[in-house]
Amino acid sequence: MTVTTAETVWTETPTTSAEWIARAQKVSDILARDAVERDRVGAAPYAEVQLLKDSGLVTLLGPTEFGGGGQRWETAYQVVRVIARGDGSIGQLLGYHYLWAWAVRLVGTEPQIGAVEELYTSNNFLFGGAVNPRDTDLTIVDRGETLVYNGVKSFSTGGRATDLTVLEGIIEGTATHVFAIVPTAQDGIVFRGDWDNLGQRLTDSGTVEIKDVEVDWAGAAGFVDKEFQPLVYNTLNFPALEIVFANFYVGIARGALDTAAEYTRTRTRPWPYGGDNKELATDEWYLREGYGDLQAKLWATEAFVDQVNRESDAVLHDARENLTEQARGDLAVRIAAAKLRAADVALEIGTRVFELTGARATSNSVGLDIFWRNVRTHTLHDPVAYKRREVGGYVLTGEIPEPTWYT
Amino acid sequence: MTVTTAETVWTETPTTSAEWIARAQKVSDILARDAVERDRVGAAPYAEVQLLKDSGLVTLLGPTEFGGGGQRWETAYQVVRVIARGDGSIGQLLGYHYLWAWAVRLVGTEPQIGAVEELYTSNNFLFGGAVNPRDTDLTIVDRGETLVYNGVKSFSTGGRATDLTVLEGIIEGTATHVFAIVPTAQDGIVFRGDWDNLGQRLTDSGTVEIKDVEVDWAGAAGFVDKEFQPLVYNTLNFPALEIVFANFYVGIARGALDTAAEYTRTRTRPWPYGGDNKELATDEWYLREGYGDLQAKLWATEAFVDQVNRESDAVLHDARENLTEQARGDLAVRIAAAKLRAADVALEIGTRVFELTGARATSNSVGLDIFWRNVRTHTLHDPVAYKRREVGGYVLTGEIPEPTWYT
Amino acid sequence: MTVTTAETVWTETPTTSAEWIARAQKVSDILARDAVERDRVGAAPYAEVQLLKDSGLVTLLGPTEFGGGGQRWETAYQVVRVIARGDGSIGQLLGYHYLWAWAVRLVGTEPQIGAVEELYTSNNFLFGGAVNPRDTDLTIVDRGETLVYNGVKSFSTGGRATDLTVLEGIIEGTATHVFAIVPTAQDGIVFRGDWDNLGQRLTDSGTVEIKDVEVDWAGAAGFVDKEFQPLVYNTLNFPALEIVFANFYVGIARGALDTAAEYTRTRTRPWPYGGDNKELATDEWYLREGYGDLQAKLWATEAFVDQVNRESDAVLHDARENLTEQARGDLAVRIAAAKLRAADVALEIGTRVFELTGARATSNSVGLDIFWRNVRTHTLHDPVAYKRREVGGYVLTGEIPEPTWYT
Amino acid sequence: MTVTTAETVWTETPTTSAEWIARAQKVSDILARDAVERDRVGAAPYAEVQLLKDSGLVTLLGPTEFGGGGQRWETAYQVVRVIARGDGSIGQLLGYHYLWAWAVRLVGTEPQIGAVEELYTSNNFLFGGAVNPRDTDLTIVDRGETLVYNGVKSFSTGGRATDLTVLEGIIEGTATHVFAIVPTAQDGIVFRGDWDNLGQRLTDSGTVEIKDVEVDWAGAAGFVDKEFQPLVYNTLNFPALEIVFANFYVGIARGALDTAAEYTRTRTRPWPYGGDNKELATDEWYLREGYGDLQAKLWATEAFVDQVNRESDAVLHDARENLTEQARGDLAVRIAAAKLRAADVALEIGTRVFELTGARATSNSVGLDIFWRNVRTHTLHDPVAYKRREVGGYVLTGEIPEPTWYT
Repeated sequence: MTVTTAETVWTETPTTSAEWIARAQKVSDILARDAVERDRVGAAPYAEVQLLKDSGLVTLLGPTEFGGGGQRWETAYQVVRVIARGDGSIGQLLGYHYLWAWAVRLVGTEPQIGAVEELYTSNNFLFGGAVNPRDTDLTIVDRGETLVYNGVKSFSTGGRATDLTVLEGIIEGTATHVFAIVPTAQDGIVFRGDWDNLGQRLTDSGTVEIKDVEVDWAGAAGFVDKEFQPLVYNTLNFPALEIVFANFYVGIARGALDTAAEYTRTRTRPWPYGGDNKELATDEWYLREGYGDLQAKLWATEAFVDQVNRESDAVLHDARENLTEQARGDLAVRIAAAKLRAADVALEIGTRVFELTGARATSNSVGLDIFWRNVRTHTLHDPVAYKRREVGGYVLTGEIPEPTWYT
Repeated sequence: MTVTTAETVWTETPTTSAEWIARAQKVSDILARDAVERDRVGAAPYAEVQLLKDSGLVTLLGPTEFGGGGQRWETAYQVVRVIARGDGSIGQLLGYHYLWAWAVRLVGTEPQIGAVEELYTSNNFLFGGAVNPRDTDLTIVDRGETLVYNGVKSFSTGGRATDLTVLEGIIEGTATHVFAIVPTAQDGIVFRGDWDNLGQRLTDSGTVEIKDVEVDWAGAAGFVDKEFQPLVYNTLNFPALEIVFANFYVGIARGALDTAAEYTRTRTRPWPYGGDNKELATDEWYLREGYGDLQAKLWATEAFVDQVNRESDAVLHDARENLTEQARGDLAVRIAAAKLRAADVALEIGTRVFELTGARATSNSVGLDIFWRNVRTHTLHDPVAYKRREVGGYVLTGEIPEPTWYT
Repeated sequence: MTVTTAETVWTETPTTSAEWIARAQKVSDILARDAVERDRVGAAPYAEVQLLKDSGLVTLLGPTEFGGGGQRWETAYQVVRVIARGDGSIGQLLGYHYLWAWAVRLVGTEPQIGAVEELYTSNNFLFGGAVNPRDTDLTIVDRGETLVYNGVKSFSTGGRATDLTVLEGIIEGTATHVFAIVPTAQDGIVFRGDWDNLGQRLTDSGTVEIKDVEVDWAGAAGFVDKEFQPLVYNTLNFPALEIVFANFYVGIARGALDTAAEYTRTRTRPWPYGGDNKELATDEWYLREGYGDLQAKLWATEAFVDQVNRESDAVLHDARENLTEQARGDLAVRIAAAKLRAADVALEIGTRVFELTGARATSNSVGLDIFWRNVRTHTLHDPVAYKRREVGGYVLTGEIPEPTWYT
Repeated sequence: MTVTTAETVWTETPTTSAEWIARAQKVSDILARDAVERDRVGAAPYAEVQLLKDSGLVTLLGPTEFGGGGQRWETAYQVVRVIARGDGSIGQLLGYHYLWAWAVRLVGTEPQIGAVEELYTSNNFLFGGAVNPRDTDLTIVDRGETLVYNGVKSFSTGGRATDLTVLEGIIEGTATHVFAIVPTAQDGIVFRGDWDNLGQRLTDSGTVEIKDVEVDWAGAAGFVDKEFQPLVYNTLNFPALEIVFANFYVGIARGALDTAAEYTRTRTRPWPYGGDNKELATDEWYLREGYGDLQAKLWATEAFVDQVNRESDAVLHDARENLTEQARGDLAVRIAAAKLRAADVALEIGTRVFELTGARATSNSVGLDIFWRNVRTHTLHDPVAYKRREVGGYVLTGEIPEPTWYT
């Protein structure tokens, strides 16, 4: 069970945003064909990542001088969304990659940015991260020239299919956090391959063990002479990731609605109802009403996520030193709200599509539950109630969230 | 992967309703232990049925003179609900059995009732049915002394694990429908074993082929000299089944809420929140609020289903000839409403429990999705929107539903 | 604008619960005739109270030996509900009266109970209360033989139309709370007549000033020799009131649904829809669906409130010393849940009925908004979110609420 | 009770869209001051209309050569929204005016367009309409040179405060509909002044009698030599009006949320809760959560309406002959969806704000119900269920709505 990547020959490289989105649509269509079967198997996504690489999407944000697409985040968000329509897992995988690839811009120095972007773009490398904040921090021992990481992290999206891994730890005896990017393929990085969850099953988001992984101090992101120079821009990691969530949630929701509508069109039988029934399911009063309700909700959410995408894009591409705490806070709240709407609507669509397709759509050969499972799983990343609280605090008092791992 | 039925020795036979419900609770607890694992395997429920038989629950409604429990429907509803808490599939299986075992009372003659009840009670037989109305009717050829059934039916709950099968067909060239009860184990009844659906996976509700199954005219339910004597009571089949649905829906919902609460109590970690957080998840504001909301909704639904159970019990145990069309209609509407509430609340609980347990509860080792999957699957039996329409017509015009296969 | 009380001559006194409920229905029908007009005027409910008195409902719970109905709370709850169908304000007024009339049983001594019940029953007196806990406590000066109350209380339901007023205050320099019952008609009790709120406009729930109101120590409820002998039963005040809320909420909701259905039947025009429309609004797909949804929800809530009514009735009529803290807590949680469901459903029905009646139903000559206004106003009595929290704490930890003014 | 229009001297005329929106905000602020009081009185909105005229907003869309603002619809939508924040009635009044002022562009000939725009712009005239399609059509008698209108129309928004009235009728004995614009101040136009409804009380949307109102054939919109030359563009009337609805719904919703938040900030007392409570209501967990939820929903809806505003603006300002049936249908469906979301969210906010402000916010001196009343009233303009059906049909079959009075 694997995506048939070979069949497509990507002869030309897109140049405009629209072309990149069209490219993403082609990849999404390929992924959609056997998304249900691949989801059941739940293997590590090697083939899927190869497809992303072959199609050029992995380096979408990379500098053109190294062969990257040179696109902006606004395009990347649309690409993530489009991919998630066909396969929610791969949408997440790609979205996380974009964020990790940008991590060096969030916290690195100018030379580090140049080096990392060249490295990953010219090699078409995929990023993953071992940074789940709810686990104990990785420990770091400072050996003078190098830093040595140890520990265990769960929810390491990308896992075995990645080329580079972002590590985050704390130097023993200090309160100093250090990010670093290391090659995934090394003895000290051991994936347990234990990701067997309800949804987003192809993200290989299992546990990783970090054993004596050594990093040169030069690779300590944002450090110059062992000193970190903070910018507000450094604290964008969570909002910058969270808006990616919103995009793959609406992508999954769109996938659900389109798939259901296609099922209703082609397979749902009209319900018999004493003389007043329709000859086609597509003409039934309640089915039309139901689709109309979900479509309206999804359109609204897409419009909102689009709007916040633009706001996020503007901040991310602006000069780092321009970002104020207030602007960072304003953006974080807007992103939280976008995530909330995307999560709510995607969950509602994920479960209600069954009422619009009928009993036979519960056959596992249809696999219509994949959308609910994917959204239900990832929307638990951090509690939505606390995000509502954050937005509400802003409404009531103008308070902006203190930057943390989850705000 | 199988329920360990042997370990429990059922030494005494319950005599009161309360004792039967306690017995059901023990069975439910046994089933709950490995419900998730058995669900994944999705085998035919031979072991589970044996457990139901050993515990005496299969003959709960059977006459005491043949070793049955001699209980009323009100107890049967509670038993179905309690079993469904531990295993939704088996709750459905048992509930359908009760209904099919009662089918001879719905449409049979007095001698047929006596014979069938003796047969199944003294032999501890489980019933299934091959009667899905949305498939083409089985055809019946009248050979003078016997009737010969042929055809194919999907959604035949119970399947291979049953001892008796209810057939329903139409005599060729006529508009005459004939129900009959036949032994499941015969060459002419072939189960395809093709039930692989999202939920209620242990009900073996796959396709059955009926090939030249012969029934003596004496077994044609309700016929005397090839003439059917209709009573309003005959038309109770759908309402009598639908209230069983409501009971296993609320049972599944209760299972979901209890399982989630136990998870939150024992495994959910409190959410860190800037100094204002709690040391225990069970003290968190939003978790308490969420559980309170769901508990209130479930209590209300349970109370309503209880009330309608009593109404249904009164009708089913009353003399058959007493039932008027109006009383039948009034009951059907109340049952439709109970089913609607049970479905809505069970679906809401099934999906929202994840928000109250957290990201790690999506691990397949937890299996918390089983509740949503079970309810999502069975609540599509017939469209809820049409049931709302039925209840609304009654509100607006006093119109009672015309008895059909789905009203 | 006034209820025409004179026209009805109440010749016989009901004796059974069913007769009392039928009596309440007649009163409700009279109130319903001009409920909208009287609501607009918002006068003090003198005429309405007279109607309650004439019909015998005021002394429903009073001992038969003094001319009371001698009924139990279960009947009183139904009576409140039925009255609220016709006029939500008067349902509240009567329900509060029943609770205040029972206050002497909650906290009084046996002699006080006898005296107060004789007093109010034989005189057909209506109770009100000046006890809103969110205001500063009334102050009490202990003058040796008497207690002298002073202060201001808002939300004093019943106000000018009552005969007796329950006072609650705290003795200066102590933590001792003292309840007492005093005649409303005295110089020291001055109503500001300032109740001009969105809903429940006929409850005269404005502000009352208490100026040197003197009470004999013998009237200090529950005190013997200036010492209070506490029982768990004393702490039932809030739950005992809250279940009354639930009853008038479902009564208002039923009034809304019945009124809307009658409007749809008689006045709503069918919506034109390109050849596929119906000739009667009552046959429209979406109107039927909408009514069915609301009816199912209301039936479920009524069943739940009925169930909790029985639980509350059993506790209230049991010997006071029998009540344990655990039993009190279990009941309080169930009542909280019943209130929650009643509030939610009544609010939903109150606003959605407009969609089922149409644009012309917004005419103020129809007054269909009275139901939403009534429920919207009273359901703010105390925050529902905290009630959900209370129920959820019970689910998660078994914790029962600490008795307070709001639990 | 009247808006104090005199105090503001509008010295400069805005020139940019942003300036116009800022101007609208000033007007909105003036209206908001006594919106509740004026709503209670429910007088004809003479003073309010004068304010709109003085501020220049009435001629916002009018040609600059005649003193108009020369703005596009996108600005007009924002202006309507901003006005509706402060006063929902006046938002509707102004929005309807913009649509009626555009009616000549929808159906008129080029010379008629020029004449009407000059007329209303240079005179600063306000439009109203007597065209409710659910009433019997006005009858028209063709007298050769003139047309004479007769009949009665309800829901004539603007009524007595307008200068020009759009008439719509059908020529007797034909199927020919004719729109015409006439001076409001004439003997044959008699307003009953009977608008006394739940909400939008200042729109003077009562009944108008048309008695022998004579119109020259030259004023028959779109007719040349008594022949009408149809364009798809002619059929935009309903979508063009419906997107105006969406704008004032979100405006009202924003007004509700802002007003409630201000109340919570300044007047809501924190809820006491056993040691775990906050000192400020603005810090309460459930209040923050509630505001966050509503804010996220409203932001999403605003973003969607903004998006559809742009789509509508593009179509309305494009050359009339460019509009295809497909493009008209695509736009109509998007507008229907925007209206649906705006209605849902505004209704939810309108009723839920009470839970976030508390019991004392039900005082009529606060008037927080005005938002729910306004939205509840106008969202019944045409049934939302049919709009959902329309959107759903588009999803399922690609079907675009047949242009009618309501699609």
